Amino acid sequence: MTKKKIGLLIIGINGAIGTTVTAGVKAINSNYVEPIGLVTEIFEFKKLDFVNLKDLVIGGWDIIEKPHMECMKSHNIIPETLYNKLVSDGMDVTVYKAPRAGITIHNLNVDGVHKDKKSITISEAIKSITDDINDFVSKNNLDGCVVGNLSSCEPLPENCEIFNSIEVFEKAIENNDSRIKASVVYAYAAIKNHAPFFNFTPNYTIDIPAIKELAIREKISIAGNDGKTGQTLYKTVIAPMLKWRNLKLFGWYSTNILGNNDGRVLEDPSHKEAKIKSKSKVLDKILGYSDFYHRVDINYYPPRGDAKEAWDTVDFKGWLGKEMCMKINWIGEDSTLAAPLIVDITRLLWYTQKKGDYGVAKHLSSFFKDPSENDDYSFGNQVQMLLNYLSN
Amino acid sequence: MTKKKIGLLIIGINGAIGTTVTAGVKAINSNYVEPIGLVTEIFEFKKLDFVNLKDLVIGGWDIIEKPHMECMKSHNIIPETLYNKLVSDGMDVTVYKAPRAGITIHNLNVDGVHKDKKSITISEAIKSITDDINDFVSKNNLDGCVVGNLSSCEPLPENCEIFNSIEVFEKAIENNDSRIKASVVYAYAAIKNHAPFFNFTPNYTIDIPAIKELAIREKISIAGNDGKTGQTLYKTVIAPMLKWRNLKLFGWYSTNILGNNDGRVLEDPSHKEAKIKSKSKVLDKILGYSDFYHRVDINYYPPRGDAKEAWDTVDFKGWLGKEMCMKINWIGEDSTLAAPLIVDITRLLWYTQKKGDYGVAKHLSSFFKDPSENDDYSFGNQVQMLLNYLSN
Amino acid sequence: MTKKKIGLLIIGINGAIGTTVTAGVKAINSNYVEPIGLVTEIFEFKKLDFVNLKDLVIGGWDIIEKPHMECMKSHNIIPETLYNKLVSDGMDVTVYKAPRAGITIHNLNVDGVHKDKKSITISEAIKSITDDINDFVSKNNLDGCVVGNLSSCEPLPENCEIFNSIEVFEKAIENNDSRIKASVVYAYAAIKNHAPFFNFTPNYTIDIPAIKELAIREKISIAGNDGKTGQTLYKTVIAPMLKWRNLKLFGWYSTNILGNNDGRVLEDPSHKEAKIKSKSKVLDKILGYSDFYHRVDINYYPPRGDAKEAWDTVDFKGWLGKEMCMKINWIGEDSTLAAPLIVDITRLLWYTQKKGDYGVAKHLSSFFKDPSENDDYSFGNQVQMLLNYLSN
Amino acid sequence: MTKKKIGLLIIGINGAIGTTVTAGVKAINSNYVEPIGLVTEIFEFKKLDFVNLKDLVIGGWDIIEKPHMECMKSHNIIPETLYNKLVSDGMDVTVYKAPRAGITIHNLNVDGVHKDKKSITISEAIKSITDDINDFVSKNNLDGCVVGNLSSCEPLPENCEIFNSIEVFEKAIENNDSRIKASVVYAYAAIKNHAPFFNFTPNYTIDIPAIKELAIREKISIAGNDGKTGQTLYKTVIAPMLKWRNLKLFGWYSTNILGNNDGRVLEDPSHKEAKIKSKSKVLDKILGYSDFYHRVDINYYPPRGDAKEAWDTVDFKGWLGKEMCMKINWIGEDSTLAAPLIVDITRLLWYTQKKGDYGVAKHLSSFFKDPSENDDYSFGNQVQMLLNYLSN
Repeated sequence: MTKKKIGLLIIGINGAIGTTVTAGVKAINSNYVEPIGLVTEIFEFKKLDFVNLKDLVIGGWDIIEKPHMECMKSHNIIPETLYNKLVSDGMDVTVYKAPRAGITIHNLNVDGVHKDKKSITISEAIKSITDDINDFVSKNNLDGCVVGNLSSCEPLPENCEIFNSIEVFEKAIENNDSRIKASVVYAYAAIKNHAPFFNFTPNYTIDIPAIKELAIREKISIAGNDGKTGQTLYKTVIAPMLKWRNLKLFGWYSTNILGNNDGRVLEDPSHKEAKIKSKSKVLDKILGYSDFYHRVDINYYPPRGDAKEAWDTVDFKGWLGKEMCMKINWIGEDSTLAAPLIVDITRLLWYTQKKGDYGVAKHLSSFFKDPSENDDYSFGNQVQMLLNYLSN
Repeated sequence: MTKKKIGLLIIGINGAIGTTVTAGVKAINSNYVEPIGLVTEIFEFKKLDFVNLKDLVIGGWDIIEKPHMECMKSHNIIPETLYNKLVSDGMDVTVYKAPRAGITIHNLNVDGVHKDKKSITISEAIKSITDDINDFVSKNNLDGCVVGNLSSCEPLPENCEIFNSIEVFEKAIENNDSRIKASVVYAYAAIKNHAPFFNFTPNYTIDIPAIKELAIREKISIAGNDGKTGQTLYKTVIAPMLKWRNLKLFGWYSTNILGNNDGRVLEDPSHKEAKIKSKSKVLDKILGYSDFYHRVDINYYPPRGDAKEAWDTVDFKGWLGKEMCMKINWIGEDSTLAAPLIVDITRLLWYTQKKGDYGVAKHLSSFFKDPSENDDYSFGNQVQMLLNYLSN
Repeated sequence: MTKKKIGLLIIGINGAIGTTVTAGVKAINSNYVEPIGLVTEIFEFKKLDFVNLKDLVIGGWDIIEKPHMECMKSHNIIPETLYNKLVSDGMDVTVYKAPRAGITIHNLNVDGVHKDKKSITISEAIKSITDDINDFVSKNNLDGCVVGNLSSCEPLPENCEIFNSIEVFEKAIENNDSRIKASVVYAYAAIKNHAPFFNFTPNYTIDIPAIKELAIREKISIAGNDGKTGQTLYKTVIAPMLKWRNLKLFGWYSTNILGNNDGRVLEDPSHKEAKIKSKSKVLDKILGYSDFYHRVDINYYPPRGDAKEAWDTVDFKGWLGKEMCMKINWIGEDSTLAAPLIVDITRLLWYTQKKGDYGVAKHLSSFFKDPSENDDYSFGNQVQMLLNYLSN
Repeated sequence: MTKKKIGLLIIGINGAIGTTVTAGVKAINSNYVEPIGLVTEIFEFKKLDFVNLKDLVIGGWDIIEKPHMECMKSHNIIPETLYNKLVSDGMDVTVYKAPRAGITIHNLNVDGVHKDKKSITISEAIKSITDDINDFVSKNNLDGCVVGNLSSCEPLPENCEIFNSIEVFEKAIENNDSRIKASVVYAYAAIKNHAPFFNFTPNYTIDIPAIKELAIREKISIAGNDGKTGQTLYKTVIAPMLKWRNLKLFGWYSTNILGNNDGRVLEDPSHKEAKIKSKSKVLDKILGYSDFYHRVDINYYPPRGDAKEAWDTVDFKGWLGKEMCMKINWIGEDSTLAAPLIVDITRLLWYTQKKGDYGVAKHLSSFFKDPSENDDYSFGNQVQMLLNYLSN
């Protein structure tokens, strides 16, 4: 008899999104809230055989050693009354200590980062991750598990020769090469352990040739990069509207203000650059031209907390060259928008794996700002790809 | 040898949109401006055999007898320098006197309405329109022509028995029944003369059973209703975004301010009602539920002139029931957005007719707020329908 | 020995603002919250001898018979945790049954309106209000009390001869004249009982000649009309900015959406008219000209709850006639903005009375949309009037 | 007989603001446009004896050698038809070559900067400026002239010992000290030649002790710094509103986008810093506290041209600590807002000088972002200061 339960192991589970995922799934399973925001619960998908939410066991890794429920409280996202109910229900989540080899910790004064600073090699880290996955699957009697990356954005070296093939990459692992960042270590370990892997951060983890090669060799589904939750989401529906009315964009200015940890990390210009880069190209790709001025700013604004406010001015020309304008003010909750997508991607990646597909799951493009192996950035078209995949 | 030229006869050609159409086509043909805003000029459509803009002869009817170029000037939409060029190039447009039978003129103090108030019967009006069409085709040596309705919004009686079949409708014509409004008279005359017909106003002209029956019997293509140019356009891309993220809409408040004649007419509650009605149902249809509060207001605000400003607040819930918000401020030019669509619909309707299709051209849904015989209000899906039609 | 304590009797104390006043004062006195929003707590006023918040006893009248704390809960304004604390502290408020003579109850299906519908005369109502005031003062051992009107907006007859002098007005009372609305009955009874009176609604209660005459005869301070809390507040700081830069306003469009009871009442056009009227003239008065288009819309939008969102577009011209624009989006909490002002007006009116002044307290103009006997609508100037008064 | 005419010599007269000043004054004098935007034309000031606009002769200096009317055209601010009228009227403006000693030219590829790069000393530059002033006054038969600085923002050294007194400053001039920037050289030369001087840029020219000392010794009126035209203008009316309602500001995020030369210069972080600094302190000073998060961003956005768009979110707390928000979107024309103020300051500075006052003209504070010797940043209070001064 097959086991029905599957696992989701989140890298960075004690963060704002991670704790919002665990709280939300628990709250839905306890009938405290409706499953709003979950794409896989839409009417059109009801007939599909996705993993039942009650059969999804969530755990993960973190560098923060404070108890998961304490971290949840500190992010100040879960409403107080719901949080209290979850605590009194005895909610608890398995959090493995994140191995520190090859892991750049951004220069933050983060309270509670575990003090176990003795350096381990990348190989030892892979061993440690492997042990955690096996432990989690076996203790929870799971059919398997999905690994998802929600850790803070880390700058990845581009066109780096050590990533060009599994062969050179595995040699670099042996050499404990410092260019191998944390997300890549996890991706490698996950795939080797036959766990579908997705990357929800702006790193190009999924696009590393060695990782793709490994996924295909091991017949594992992977997905990424960079969750599409707010400003880029609406950009990818507004831009197709301009395109199919032949309205000529000549300027799009986007400012973002956010007050959470993600905002603090993005104050660091090198992290900001990766983020802005992954946000920028969507317009060119959708519109088919690039002779417009596109600027994306991200600013840390503590009063906003976990909410992520955006303001855009979209300047375009129409008939007779007349200039017109659309201005958008988005007041979203960052983690609230991201959390259900984590569950959706997990369910869909598992569904894909069970169906026998592997490599980059392009039909999951609609969930990502910069979908791997897909140049169609229109949200509508991406959703159509998913619908087509699921209807076959 | 077939004639290459075709005609477009616009009902209300001296109005803001009508004059913007004629000025724009002339300006493009004179290489004064780029064909921005014309969907049929998009890269993807280049290979298709649409009527060349230089082969499109535009004329029409109006109740305003002032010369067309004077009307153009009075709308204050065409930039002064361009207008002067067009005048010095000797631009002129054939405008037939609109027959007044069965035509409700809204209670405006419109200057220049022709004084020829002797009442004629509907049958006489049909005869007059027929003569005008034939005159236009013959004088301009055309292969045929398309008729498009841009007149001011008129309240149409719903579920009116005289519209139920051609038979009863033609009897009503004979009886000079006052429930037959102007747009229906034109539609009837156009189809009888084998001219494809489209309705760009909020009237349900195209949905009258007798008109549809006639179009099928005469093998003529028709399209409508109500051009989708501004607020409804972006509603039909934002709403699918909410749907496919399973974000629960609970309120959408839309206000519109506009200062042109359309705004003045809409001050009259009965006209406003038809307009608001055609704007309202799009959300329910796209989202698949209606338990949200949707309110659309339209207000006359003379300082805005022909520009049409809209402000929306879109209130939705996500994961854990958290409330979020998107606010949109659209500053568009009403006639500037509408004008190129008139040319697009003409080209596409003629293309459809030549292809041998007839009845309601559902593949033109993306151009209309309330597309006839199509319940899919998502702009993205409507565009896909057009692409599919054109690729066959 | 003088008693230090004074009373505040609120007409409509079970409403949204009334319950927010009582909750807030109690919460401040219990040190649960800071006195934010209270003008009389500003640094500049610290040295003045205003009534201590702990010496302010609040009670009132209402047509709703549900217990005050239940009403407070139903308005959904006080945060749940604070509300629970107040309840467990045993908070209670004296609410007298509002007499029904001369009282227009708007046509709402308001739950819990007391069923004691036997008609009483206006004279009997005055007697009843008098008894309540005396009872409240005596039971709470007060030095005196202030009466404030927070009831729903009622349409007052203008230029009505029965209001022209005390003499004719008192005859109209004897005749039980139905043109005498509730707020006027309360104002009359309050002043006769030597209680300073203020009107926070859009009625022109304070401007009735008979009421003013009475206040002067009885040497009582009065203030009104219509609390200035949101859109009009910022209008009266933006308009002076335009004036003193000589920027020529040519259009100001204001839309308001609100979801509370006030919003429901304003759906009734006659109530709406009074409100819009009191909002409209501020611009003309401040700018000194009126050749601009000013439109104020108020719409009921239930998703907004007690919050009151406003959106304005302010169109003005500068040097060379160039057109520019300022757009404002205000997301305020209606009752939260109003409640502290009720306390401020009470303290300041009592201070004025003690100082020996009476009649219309013009120095309180900054609190009102349409201040009685003051044509200077600039908020800055109004504040200056208050500062000058208090520094003498 | 006294001469009635006076002069205005603008440093940077070929720039966007300079050319808008000259075009506007000429257009008003030719009755082409109304004097909108001129504070000194407000009704309240009609009786005062300001210099007649026809008696104001405008000239200036610039590093750009292109003819003034060509520069005007290139800024693309004056409407084409008006520009053509001015040219055909033979409009011309005297532009002296700006001496280059002590003048930091920002690193722009500015076309047309005069090639006369031979270095001159500061003393020679002062001599050259003196000659220009005398030439202008004599050729135009003027009663005197005012000098105003509109040049691009230059970073001034703070607390620099060479500025501490006239004595050390004049020694530094002799030593040709490179810390003496252009605006200071002009200020020194103007005052020595008995020309009232104002600084409209973010430099602290007016606050240099040596300059103030000189102005007092020479009995000359001076005014500055940094013209208040847009975002800071409305900040200084919104912040007093919050203060006098005791609404607690906890965050104010301001973004500015502009596409003109000023925007390009501000891309350089050192220039940006001076500008942002002069914009930042207004809130603290008005509110009397600084425990809020205030962030001002300025970004170059070419599609906006000379227009300067700003977006602000103003986050504040009220009664019970409830959070509320005001969002502002300002679409102004930078030079159009600044130009009339240049004329106003000139008239008022001359008026002050004639009245016999000298040193910093504090009553002109309302025109400046960072008024010298005045800590009251409230626009309303600043206007009151002006009214008081003028009514004496």
